[in-house]
Amino acid sequence: MPRKGVLTVISGFSGVGKGTIVKKLVSEHDEYAVSVSATTRNPRPGEENGRDYFFLTNEAFESMIKDDGLIEYAKYVDHYYGTPRAYVERKLSEGKDVILEIDAQGALQIKKQYPDALLIFIVPPTADVLRERLKGRGTEDADTIKDRLSRAAEETAYIKNYEYVVVNDDLERAVLDVHTVIQSAHMRLGNNDEFLTILSQQIKNKFEV
Amino acid sequence: MPRKGVLTVISGFSGVGKGTIVKKLVSEHDEYAVSVSATTRNPRPGEENGRDYFFLTNEAFESMIKDDGLIEYAKYVDHYYGTPRAYVERKLSEGKDVILEIDAQGALQIKKQYPDALLIFIVPPTADVLRERLKGRGTEDADTIKDRLSRAAEETAYIKNYEYVVVNDDLERAVLDVHTVIQSAHMRLGNNDEFLTILSQQIKNKFEV
Repeated sequence: MPRKGVLTVISGFSGVGKGTIVKKLVSEHDEYAVSVSATTRNPRPGEENGRDYFFLTNEAFESMIKDDGLIEYAKYVDHYYGTPRAYVERKLSEGKDVILEIDAQGALQIKKQYPDALLIFIVPPTADVLRERLKGRGTEDADTIKDRLSRAAEETAYIKNYEYVVVNDDLERAVLDVHTVIQSAHMRLGNNDEFLTILSQQIKNKFEV
Repeated sequence: MPRKGVLTVISGFSGVGKGTIVKKLVSEHDEYAVSVSATTRNPRPGEENGRDYFFLTNEAFESMIKDDGLIEYAKYVDHYYGTPRAYVERKLSEGKDVILEIDAQGALQIKKQYPDALLIFIVPPTADVLRERLKGRGTEDADTIKDRLSRAAEETAYIKNYEYVVVNDDLERAVLDVHTVIQSAHMRLGNNDEFLTILSQQIKNKFEV
């Protein structure tokens, strides 16, 4: 029986380290595939089309929306961001565990279409750690850091929509915890219904008196 | 934040190897504690009080029922079997992951009282493997084997009440799968609510604008 891939949404506050966790997870295990988002914003220096994002025109993005070619999307500050359906469904059917790194609104859109999707929220061990990580990056100015922290304060309201929470205190531990949660989903009843139907029928046919 | 223990019920057809899985799991990891059942049946040769079962008189068992001292119990062929509450609750509060190896009726009683309990059903890869394992034990006569297989046919109806299914094809793999499922439960939202309440409050107090 070929195993079905698990679709996982990973969200978390800006600066919590979810990108690092996903990168490490994927580099350590072959069973994962990470979805690349589409966007209408311009590429930043060093960003590559098809690796960081699929960079699309407004027209191309809106025609994907119309054709139901995105499994979730949103508009922030005049730019669209979304997840192309084709890649996700192809990888799932190949048995890959597909990871989407998207925000809480996107997570809810995914859960509606894929009720078996796994929703994981990454949190820091403390509020101070989150602030220190954002400062430590050294890439954002004080105003941007303030904006991100105030957004984190808003996002705490969304954690209740997730099924699992992973604390990113020690990176190795967080990667292992995310891996454990995703792999456990393969043993969920809903991911084994075909096998269980066949097995139950076999047992009844052969042993029922 | 001290971690709470996870309460896990492991069920499965007679002969599927659940006892072997639990024994191996517990011998490989320190975080587990296996509950010992109480019964009013007589000890068999080699069985030890407090290790295999707590052997009780009928009066002692019924007074435990009256005092709410059992988290589940049933009567089979004139004998009581049940799970003492005190051991389970003490081990859970010590942070141990407590395993109960009980049947489908017991599993439902547990789930009513402990909604966060994890219900795992162990299955063989095929019906034939189940029959071969029962025969291979060499401890039961043909009639007993036939009884157990016909009971397995009935028990297929209960699998739908479980949350996870683990296939015992390769023992090492099955032990790892059970371990993965139980450890993933520590990351469930419900097992982290105190921590999340404190963290969310911290983040809001410090960063809300």
